[in-house]
Amino acid sequence: MANDKKLVEQITSMEKDFAQWYTDVVKKAELIDYTSVKGCMVIKPAGYAIWENIQAELDRRFKETGVENVYLPLFIPENLLRKESELVEGFAPEVAWVTQGGLEPLQERLCVRPTSETLFSDFYKNDVHSYRDLPKVYNQWCSVVRWEKTTRPFLRSREFLWQEGHTVHATAEEAQERTEQMLNVYADFCEEVLAIPVVRGKKTDKEKFAGAVATYTIESLMHDGQALQSGTSHNFGDKFAQAYGIQFTDRDNKLKYAYQTSWGMTTRMIGAIIMVHGDNSGLVLPPRIAPVQVMVVPIQQKKEGVLEKAREILDMLKAAGLRARLDDSDKSPGWKFSEQEMRGIPCRIEIGPKDIEAGQAVIVRRDNREKTVSSIGDLAGTVKKVLEQEQADLFAKAKAHRDEHTYDAPTKEEFADAAENKHGFIRAMWCGCRECEDAIKEEYGVTSRCMPFAQETLSDTCVYCGKPAKTLVYWGKAY
Amino acid sequence: MANDKKLVEQITSMEKDFAQWYTDVVKKAELIDYTSVKGCMVIKPAGYAIWENIQAELDRRFKETGVENVYLPLFIPENLLRKESELVEGFAPEVAWVTQGGLEPLQERLCVRPTSETLFSDFYKNDVHSYRDLPKVYNQWCSVVRWEKTTRPFLRSREFLWQEGHTVHATAEEAQERTEQMLNVYADFCEEVLAIPVVRGKKTDKEKFAGAVATYTIESLMHDGQALQSGTSHNFGDKFAQAYGIQFTDRDNKLKYAYQTSWGMTTRMIGAIIMVHGDNSGLVLPPRIAPVQVMVVPIQQKKEGVLEKAREILDMLKAAGLRARLDDSDKSPGWKFSEQEMRGIPCRIEIGPKDIEAGQAVIVRRDNREKTVSSIGDLAGTVKKVLEQEQADLFAKAKAHRDEHTYDAPTKEEFADAAENKHGFIRAMWCGCRECEDAIKEEYGVTSRCMPFAQETLSDTCVYCGKPAKTLVYWGKAY
Repeated sequence: MANDKKLVEQITSMEKDFAQWYTDVVKKAELIDYTSVKGCMVIKPAGYAIWENIQAELDRRFKETGVENVYLPLFIPENLLRKESELVEGFAPEVAWVTQGGLEPLQERLCVRPTSETLFSDFYKNDVHSYRDLPKVYNQWCSVVRWEKTTRPFLRSREFLWQEGHTVHATAEEAQERTEQMLNVYADFCEEVLAIPVVRGKKTDKEKFAGAVATYTIESLMHDGQALQSGTSHNFGDKFAQAYGIQFTDRDNKLKYAYQTSWGMTTRMIGAIIMVHGDNSGLVLPPRIAPVQVMVVPIQQKKEGVLEKAREILDMLKAAGLRARLDDSDKSPGWKFSEQEMRGIPCRIEIGPKDIEAGQAVIVRRDNREKTVSSIGDLAGTVKKVLEQEQADLFAKAKAHRDEHTYDAPTKEEFADAAENKHGFIRAMWCGCRECEDAIKEEYGVTSRCMPFAQETLSDTCVYCGKPAKTLVYWGKAY
Repeated sequence: MANDKKLVEQITSMEKDFAQWYTDVVKKAELIDYTSVKGCMVIKPAGYAIWENIQAELDRRFKETGVENVYLPLFIPENLLRKESELVEGFAPEVAWVTQGGLEPLQERLCVRPTSETLFSDFYKNDVHSYRDLPKVYNQWCSVVRWEKTTRPFLRSREFLWQEGHTVHATAEEAQERTEQMLNVYADFCEEVLAIPVVRGKKTDKEKFAGAVATYTIESLMHDGQALQSGTSHNFGDKFAQAYGIQFTDRDNKLKYAYQTSWGMTTRMIGAIIMVHGDNSGLVLPPRIAPVQVMVVPIQQKKEGVLEKAREILDMLKAAGLRARLDDSDKSPGWKFSEQEMRGIPCRIEIGPKDIEAGQAVIVRRDNREKTVSSIGDLAGTVKKVLEQEQADLFAKAKAHRDEHTYDAPTKEEFADAAENKHGFIRAMWCGCRECEDAIKEEYGVTSRCMPFAQETLSDTCVYCGKPAKTLVYWGKAY
């Protein structure tokens, strides 16, 4: 068992240095690798399989609401990008430009898409003529590029994978409904599948998406008390339709501008899983998203009958629909446990000669190492129950952590104390003016995360200026 | 029924102008749209859904052979691209270059990936150290960019979607096995799912992939007699390993270079489906790849009970696992038939008051309009049998067409006659020298498609120079 600790010893403890712990887990769980392309990463099989599961779950939920998938070009001609002024201002500092195609310089620069509102608008302009053509509820899975100066695996990289939904509607009401509907799809997905509790709300004008009328967001809290914007949904009203000329003949025979939304979720959710559930033994994956849910580890596998029984168990688990693997490598059991834990596999099954004699196996949960002994006959059913409980416990634990690190600040003193000495969400009332929001960021180093849908009144006055309060805001430091 | 013909009348007949017929079908079946980005297209829902089915089928077949998915960067630094000289020469004239990131010019140009051998090699260099790390059998689904001068939807565009598999092995034998294995996965997929018969073979040195030791290909024949390269699989030997320094310590403790392969299939297969199966009424989709397999069309739908029964049938078909839709729009039945045919939906079910009275419905196949009357109780089972037969018939018809348009040319005269007057594959013997291959292209306008695995001897001498023949070659005009 000397080897046992080696893998764990290679990662920094989260209490010592959370950022280094994160980087170590990302590397040692073999999720990514760095590349010769500055600011870009390789997503390795263990990382990409998580993304495939996120895609499958989200895509199914999207399609249940009528979403259809499409694919639009990677490039945006400069003049097309420039048609919507706010969007250009927001993105111009961080786009990559293609200036040469083949051996010839291009007549017009093309930017590599940072997001595709402009392309979808240009497409809808040709595709939408009558109210009969509406709504169009399209989505694409692709990569986008934003020329970030400092990058971190999954959280901020020059290229990342995402989905971007873009819809077009005949009425403002329908667009607003779709904006909220998709935010709720994201929220339910995060809570039910990723076991990450979220706060649903609206962004302030300062924090909303460039060009949007309103941006809605789900915000989650990482283990270190920093917030992560986990999914956003934007209502554009008819602003893009006006800029790009998307008009349709309505039932009353009048020509009208259409209403649009967009919404996206990215590979940064893999970072969220790591920072919400991970521990000092490595990654912890919620069972519903884990590419491998069960690792079968034979004990004294050279003894007669052990490997045979382990294979039998593997087949039994697979037949029951569990995503199971067998580790029959020549490593020690302790090393295998350590690897299974580092990779976040939600449980392992230990099966040795004594277990076989007793007709049983031992199930060990990843999150709390709780052991359950089960007869081999009942094993698949027991594993399913254990995984369901683990999924529920991970959510409950994350929610308790989030709630314990959410601080109400009715007064400026309490706000200052929370911002300086505590790590988490700060809830405080706000008058709604940009000056206070800017000042709070300047003085306390926190930004407004959202105005939650679930409003409460903590006091009658703005925590900063003392004028009448308009809304409750979640504030925090954010990734 | 006046409307009935309108949709069909909007497409050119294939006998009159095959290229225009193709373009018309692509547009009228709503597979793509053109964009403001020259040479790039929008893949619309009806087109993208075909690609999703291709992805799902191929991905499942890949994973059964041990493939794992990953994601590598979109960009390749110029110096990384230049490490393998043949590859650079092959791709340099057709890559797009990023020269500016954000507001700053880049110190080193980045090319937008035209293919990722260089990035995978750079990644494997760091990831492979010991024989224990081998093999690695990775694949990625992504888009690539090649700055083509003339473009056609699906067949040749500046950006297209594909998968690219990249593997690394300890021995030359294992790499060769994997190269052939993946070619066979492609061939089986084309024949079993797309109903497209293929010729499996090896490319000549002239036609092989830049930097490969050997390229294998599957070649299919379009309705107009032109060939389409439908999937390729490359064996690189240790050439890339030498250029990029991928070395591992083998069991004998010696440091050795690794062996690599790559293999790809693209969205051009959607073009192949159109050009192999389509007809003058539009697209014809083989049932196994069709996003919608059955369209239920109510007749006299305003009469009491018709729509209810149509909905009942829809639910019944869905419950049986069929991909079914109901067209309950206010268009005429004739117009609905015409749309279903244009979109290539493999069959429709006609259900009207008289059918309901008789307890039956009429199934009409897309390919030959053959009708089958079925009791409503047996409908789902009957539709499944009809679709199975249609799938088999489409393959048989395509194979018969391919075989009828494959011409043996034992002599130069027969070769010249076939190249000039016939449209299809020409089979002829070749001495193996580049001069004859170049001369045949120059004189007859056909290129070598492949040296088929299934070799035969049509004559003892090269069809061009008369020297001893080495191999049988398929020649043809190609997309």
